[in-house]
Amino acid sequence: MNIGFIGLGNMGSAMARRLVEAGHSLTVYNRTPSRAEPLRALGATVATDAGQAASRADVLITMLANDRAVEEIVLGPGKALEALPAAALHVSMSTISVELSRRLSAAHRDQAKHYVAATVFGRPDVAAAGKLFIVAAGADADVQRCRAIFDVLGQKTFTAGTDASAANVIKLAGNFLITTVIESLAECVALARKSGVDPHLMLDALTGSLFSAPVYHTYGNLIIEQKFEPPGFKLPLGMKDNTLVLDAAQAANVPMPMASLLHDRFVTAMATGLGESDWSAIARVEYQSAGL
Amino acid sequence: MNIGFIGLGNMGSAMARRLVEAGHSLTVYNRTPSRAEPLRALGATVATDAGQAASRADVLITMLANDRAVEEIVLGPGKALEALPAAALHVSMSTISVELSRRLSAAHRDQAKHYVAATVFGRPDVAAAGKLFIVAAGADADVQRCRAIFDVLGQKTFTAGTDASAANVIKLAGNFLITTVIESLAECVALARKSGVDPHLMLDALTGSLFSAPVYHTYGNLIIEQKFEPPGFKLPLGMKDNTLVLDAAQAANVPMPMASLLHDRFVTAMATGLGESDWSAIARVEYQSAGL
Amino acid sequence: MNIGFIGLGNMGSAMARRLVEAGHSLTVYNRTPSRAEPLRALGATVATDAGQAASRADVLITMLANDRAVEEIVLGPGKALEALPAAALHVSMSTISVELSRRLSAAHRDQAKHYVAATVFGRPDVAAAGKLFIVAAGADADVQRCRAIFDVLGQKTFTAGTDASAANVIKLAGNFLITTVIESLAECVALARKSGVDPHLMLDALTGSLFSAPVYHTYGNLIIEQKFEPPGFKLPLGMKDNTLVLDAAQAANVPMPMASLLHDRFVTAMATGLGESDWSAIARVEYQSAGL
Amino acid sequence: MNIGFIGLGNMGSAMARRLVEAGHSLTVYNRTPSRAEPLRALGATVATDAGQAASRADVLITMLANDRAVEEIVLGPGKALEALPAAALHVSMSTISVELSRRLSAAHRDQAKHYVAATVFGRPDVAAAGKLFIVAAGADADVQRCRAIFDVLGQKTFTAGTDASAANVIKLAGNFLITTVIESLAECVALARKSGVDPHLMLDALTGSLFSAPVYHTYGNLIIEQKFEPPGFKLPLGMKDNTLVLDAAQAANVPMPMASLLHDRFVTAMATGLGESDWSAIARVEYQSAGL
Repeated sequence: MNIGFIGLGNMGSAMARRLVEAGHSLTVYNRTPSRAEPLRALGATVATDAGQAASRADVLITMLANDRAVEEIVLGPGKALEALPAAALHVSMSTISVELSRRLSAAHRDQAKHYVAATVFGRPDVAAAGKLFIVAAGADADVQRCRAIFDVLGQKTFTAGTDASAANVIKLAGNFLITTVIESLAECVALARKSGVDPHLMLDALTGSLFSAPVYHTYGNLIIEQKFEPPGFKLPLGMKDNTLVLDAAQAANVPMPMASLLHDRFVTAMATGLGESDWSAIARVEYQSAGL
Repeated sequence: MNIGFIGLGNMGSAMARRLVEAGHSLTVYNRTPSRAEPLRALGATVATDAGQAASRADVLITMLANDRAVEEIVLGPGKALEALPAAALHVSMSTISVELSRRLSAAHRDQAKHYVAATVFGRPDVAAAGKLFIVAAGADADVQRCRAIFDVLGQKTFTAGTDASAANVIKLAGNFLITTVIESLAECVALARKSGVDPHLMLDALTGSLFSAPVYHTYGNLIIEQKFEPPGFKLPLGMKDNTLVLDAAQAANVPMPMASLLHDRFVTAMATGLGESDWSAIARVEYQSAGL
Repeated sequence: MNIGFIGLGNMGSAMARRLVEAGHSLTVYNRTPSRAEPLRALGATVATDAGQAASRADVLITMLANDRAVEEIVLGPGKALEALPAAALHVSMSTISVELSRRLSAAHRDQAKHYVAATVFGRPDVAAAGKLFIVAAGADADVQRCRAIFDVLGQKTFTAGTDASAANVIKLAGNFLITTVIESLAECVALARKSGVDPHLMLDALTGSLFSAPVYHTYGNLIIEQKFEPPGFKLPLGMKDNTLVLDAAQAANVPMPMASLLHDRFVTAMATGLGESDWSAIARVEYQSAGL
Repeated sequence: MNIGFIGLGNMGSAMARRLVEAGHSLTVYNRTPSRAEPLRALGATVATDAGQAASRADVLITMLANDRAVEEIVLGPGKALEALPAAALHVSMSTISVELSRRLSAAHRDQAKHYVAATVFGRPDVAAAGKLFIVAAGADADVQRCRAIFDVLGQKTFTAGTDASAANVIKLAGNFLITTVIESLAECVALARKSGVDPHLMLDALTGSLFSAPVYHTYGNLIIEQKFEPPGFKLPLGMKDNTLVLDAAQAANVPMPMASLLHDRFVTAMATGLGESDWSAIARVEYQSAGL
């Protein structure tokens, strides 16, 4: 399969590498060209612009930083969507807004091209190991066409219906849930510390019983040990995703008071110098509020 | 071992039954005497008041509804603490306030009697199966004395240090975390429903990936299917525990904005007729707010 | 009129003094006896206990710090209520809980004694000038009996119906509104400062147009100039009153999300060392959150 | 003075009319042309597009619905800014974002044209009576040039410094404060109603004492009597302004938890069918939450 791959950040690079190594013919593109060199060394073709990366693709994958990047690179004149061959398929794997995903659906439909949203859970090391969780939505046949790709990239693929933007809603919901776990653990740890309870013993009891999901274990330890630097996922990115949740919720007329509360936490974190820390550093806001 | 057991609600009855069946000599007491009869049939002695249940115990277990009940039955003149033999051990398994647990510690110490707080996670059916999670705190030797009892009642016991009230802090923290899971899932499900996403597919994707803890699966399904009646854990009890969290947090000068938000949810639920429903019915408040 | 007066804090002393100076025969009592001396010098009789202060009163006024003080001094055995002559009237002017005010109503009714709740707005200097605002509730005839007293103490008396506790609800509502003004102004001032807007010019525009009530002017300036010390009304007292609002709201099944938010602010203020500051120092919490 | 006037909604029409009647030479423009006819009848010239309205102006006033309208009509190619004569002055009186106001400042500066932001408090009837409150910011000489205009339109003009966007910050802060008044009163009224207190007596006591600003009186009565229809200021407009506050706060890294809370209220109001009601109908959300 000829695969175009646009967006070689930490996530994209790890994913593209797996696809090359699995034997796919890849044409890659990244705005900062130097990031494409390691892939060239592995046998990928390096395109000089987004249109070129799309123009020979059976399947085009985009893994970009945000809405603006996707709009420019996919929807701009002469860019990826225009260049994509008739009947080819675009798999958008970026974390973008529900609204943009809907516009992308419509734009592809207008040009009789195919669009699948396939969002991912997992950090770069997970991507490198091909252990991502993937949530895919779009026409059944289109999702089916991606199976081989998803199997290279992830440990498990969930389907979310034929409306592509459902995958974006679920991705945002998942990140929202992680943030609520961070905040709720931070409040518990602050309570423990100020009540004379060893937070490690508390975390052991909680994760050893009802809260066995790794997310509690991982973030619980980061929060207790205050290992907020270096960041695994930068705080402003977490804030951006929370803003996307609030935007989607507002568009659908759904109040999400926990997301509002988290918004305040993120803003406070930004205001108090945590912009270079991990998003779990909203726990530091709680600690400061508690006088710790 | 001679065990006194006070408090034969749904949880207490299930626990007392397991202890009798494990061969312990039990003297039970409950304010409503009829609830003691099934245990008498199994061989337990039925005491006529709390003092009598305590007076011959090597270990006295209390499993009562709330602070008020514990204060009356344990601390009242002529009641359990006074009647407890010298050097005997009281294991308080009720969900009570951190503050009362501290007072109990001090009161037992004053009378040279022993006190362990051992809180539990699990519903009555879990208790009946001896599968509770137990969090125990108190002097090491005292906790050690309870091992045989805990092994009959639970699948796993966590220790939380020598300050007994730590077990109460952890119990409250655990219930708080469950409530945050309920609320966060409710917000996600409302968002899904109003965005045209199948909430079951969303839940499958989330619980099949990062949120694998049973609590997400169990409550997610209750929330999606709106199975709030009959209650597994009544909403006013959930509200009471959230109030205990807020009280403990206030006493320790720890802001817990999520607990405050949940307080508002619980009050709204009570005001809108959900007082007989399961505590997960705070999801119904979210649905109503979203016009669902 | 023979007036008993119990509670000679800053507010009570100022009020008692006005009553003596207006020619009333006053018998005063305070737990710390030295505070009664200035009133003795003005001609008041000093009682040695609460019962004595009540025993000869046509009207007994209590102006105490909190629920606990009122319970002890009014409801305790041999205390004020018991000692109060038949048909005498007790005017409770303290800021107490709605629930205690209801219990006081019932307790007085049971003993065929009369009870009016008359809460006040104004600080000690306002009390000294006889310029308090008074909100009175109780049986019409009872409120009428207090007119002469209210005219000495306040510039204006509002009546709030025949259920005495209404006066307590309104007092708590008023303090809640002041706290919302403080918090909302703090957020505006933080926004102004970080947006390069002179907060004084902002405050002038707002108080010179729609927000002409003195409370905006007074607290706006305190907040901008950060004059939180010395306190006019100590932060823990503001927090206590906010807790009373939340308690009344919970008892009535009324969610008050702004009061919950303010609770978090007060707890944070206590945790970060503002316990000796004015209650308007919750603005400092906002400033710190904004990195100011 | 030759005045161009763009935007003849309810506010703009009332303001333009006063200017014509005060003897100014007005050229008006509105996207829906019919709204210009009453002004033509009074002697105004009616332009066929925004550029024409601007092209002969000494001072151009815009009073448009939102950012998008201002961007199109002022900044679009061939539109008002381009058409404005050199050295002429644009007075932007619309409620727009702080960010757009900053961009407008820069755009005018780039073309050596003058820009003042002059935001207003008051509804259309107040505008018709020339009783608006005006907050103006910009270069001193520019603000000075507008004095005669402001005197026709308003009862009082406040200046807010030389950075034009300060006027926008203050306008948004003012609307935010009004919304906090609405919400806080709604919570008080719900508490009163469910506690058996006559809310009119409560409001009288509060507005007759500390909360004498008309905003408490006006909205208090609307809220008690539930006169949410017909709207004076439609709920979605209130929501839009609250969103502008949150945007400005996020841009400046200022957490505004009350604005977040109000956001949730507005979303709930939209979700529950209050989109055609007055913005004070967020009180209905509180009533419903309280089971009223």
